[in-house]
Amino acid sequence: MNKLDERKIIDIFQKKLVKDNHHEDVEIFRLGKKFGVIKTDTLVESTDVPPQMRPEQIARKSMVAPLSDFASKGVKPRHGIISISLPRGYPRSKLISLAKGFKDTSRQFGVKILGGDTNEAKEIVISVMLFGIASRITARSGAKQRDIIVTTGNFGRTSAGLGILLHKNRSPEKFRKLATNSVLLPKPRLEFGVLAAKYFSSSMDSSDGLSTTLTQMSAASKKRFIITQVPKDVELDEFSKDNHLNAVDLVFNGGEEYEIVATISPKNIEKIKKIAKAKKINLIQIGHVENGKGVLFQHGKKQTRVKDKGWTHFS
Amino acid sequence: MNKLDERKIIDIFQKKLVKDNHHEDVEIFRLGKKFGVIKTDTLVESTDVPPQMRPEQIARKSMVAPLSDFASKGVKPRHGIISISLPRGYPRSKLISLAKGFKDTSRQFGVKILGGDTNEAKEIVISVMLFGIASRITARSGAKQRDIIVTTGNFGRTSAGLGILLHKNRSPEKFRKLATNSVLLPKPRLEFGVLAAKYFSSSMDSSDGLSTTLTQMSAASKKRFIITQVPKDVELDEFSKDNHLNAVDLVFNGGEEYEIVATISPKNIEKIKKIAKAKKINLIQIGHVENGKGVLFQHGKKQTRVKDKGWTHFS
Repeated sequence: MNKLDERKIIDIFQKKLVKDNHHEDVEIFRLGKKFGVIKTDTLVESTDVPPQMRPEQIARKSMVAPLSDFASKGVKPRHGIISISLPRGYPRSKLISLAKGFKDTSRQFGVKILGGDTNEAKEIVISVMLFGIASRITARSGAKQRDIIVTTGNFGRTSAGLGILLHKNRSPEKFRKLATNSVLLPKPRLEFGVLAAKYFSSSMDSSDGLSTTLTQMSAASKKRFIITQVPKDVELDEFSKDNHLNAVDLVFNGGEEYEIVATISPKNIEKIKKIAKAKKINLIQIGHVENGKGVLFQHGKKQTRVKDKGWTHFS
Repeated sequence: MNKLDERKIIDIFQKKLVKDNHHEDVEIFRLGKKFGVIKTDTLVESTDVPPQMRPEQIARKSMVAPLSDFASKGVKPRHGIISISLPRGYPRSKLISLAKGFKDTSRQFGVKILGGDTNEAKEIVISVMLFGIASRITARSGAKQRDIIVTTGNFGRTSAGLGILLHKNRSPEKFRKLATNSVLLPKPRLEFGVLAAKYFSSSMDSSDGLSTTLTQMSAASKKRFIITQVPKDVELDEFSKDNHLNAVDLVFNGGEEYEIVATISPKNIEKIKKIAKAKKINLIQIGHVENGKGVLFQHGKKQTRVKDKGWTHFS
């Protein structure tokens, strides 16, 4: 038996099934003069749900993944359908709580749930499909020399949060809630993305991990990405030290952060900062774009290669 | 713990989530002067896949369920996205065969697969989402007095096929392939539905079982459905007798037949027969519509009520 990681599986399906082999965060098709935009993401209990996660939070998380993809492309999703598979005997009280999670999350982000289907399975599996219409979509490619690379928040929290929830990692008190909330109550940057994406030269959702995201963006634009600033909370260093972890590794290779990574022409940076401020987004300038290839981390005069070690299922 | 059957779960979600509480085979939303039509269906290994089913067939079956919903509404699906969850270590050869199944089925029915996502889970779970655009959609309601009730084929084969595959039920040789193929290689009536639906006064996909389908159609139209003809193969009687089963029960309460059940004004019946002939559909007139309510089976002068015992998950 050949074991396969997720990317290889995607490659096999892509080659067999999808004709235009564009890699994007969302799927796009022509709809008159506009585009139909569709995305599905699936949450699986055994790989995506820590035991502390309540049913409302499970529902929320299942919606956040595709919401974040829409956010990164600057598209507002209008409609959703949800496929829910549950184990036999799933209690009614939890089911009501799950339904409440879908209702609250869809209301919060302005998505109308049209329907879906329910099934019996060995564990909870939820696929959320979102649909929207757009006149333009910000691509993964398009970064230009001298563009500024930004993120919509700090990284490493989710890995730390999973460490706290699953392995009882010790945490500075101030950081604990920040870290566990990034797992239990993740925030897609939808409002910001919808307003700001028209000023991005390229963008991508970061949930596969920061190193993977930067690597794919750099490759799509055929440009070199120079990282000069590690987007992390100050408490992540203490957390990492206390738990014998590497903070930089948590930041670059953690995954499941629902932040937007974007490149922005210097002439647009003030506009973006304004939108970020209005939407309470902690916009972080992490580096810049140069001619060349690859993702490099610059500390002082030294440059080291950032390897693509992003988080994938099946690995 | 309250155990719930699928319909109760759907009801909970419907009440909590979906505003216009219309029950249809597909989800519909306004798209300019037309309608966007979306449907998702999920296949779960432990409940939907007999051990004899090959990966290509698993892929095919996962697409057939939503294809059949589109067929019953007379809408051609244009695009699809697929979410695939697989157990860790799923072999590459099976994966390629699965991808082939998606490719062949999507090609056969003219659906362009835009993409999807892959995940790790304890068992195979596949959600297929199809999208199309329509100017009109045939509803579940709309049946008129004296309309003719038709099906696009015989029922009971799938239950018999599952009996043969799972319980080694004996079968007349001629019937064996018909029955097992209806499980392993189900046929959605897409071409027929797309051409014929404009002549239906109402229609519905029958995969929840014939008794459920007729009950829901009768309730939606507020009309009485009189069934005078049981749509079954002659061999089903022998199969049932040999295996101590009730043929009428298999027909009405089996489920997972991907046939269209429709009501047709007598003035349109010849048009429909012509389309059925061209598309090699075995159109069966099973009864007619009267004023009143409920579904009744008429044998000679006696009428008995057809109870809604259709197949549901979680029961």
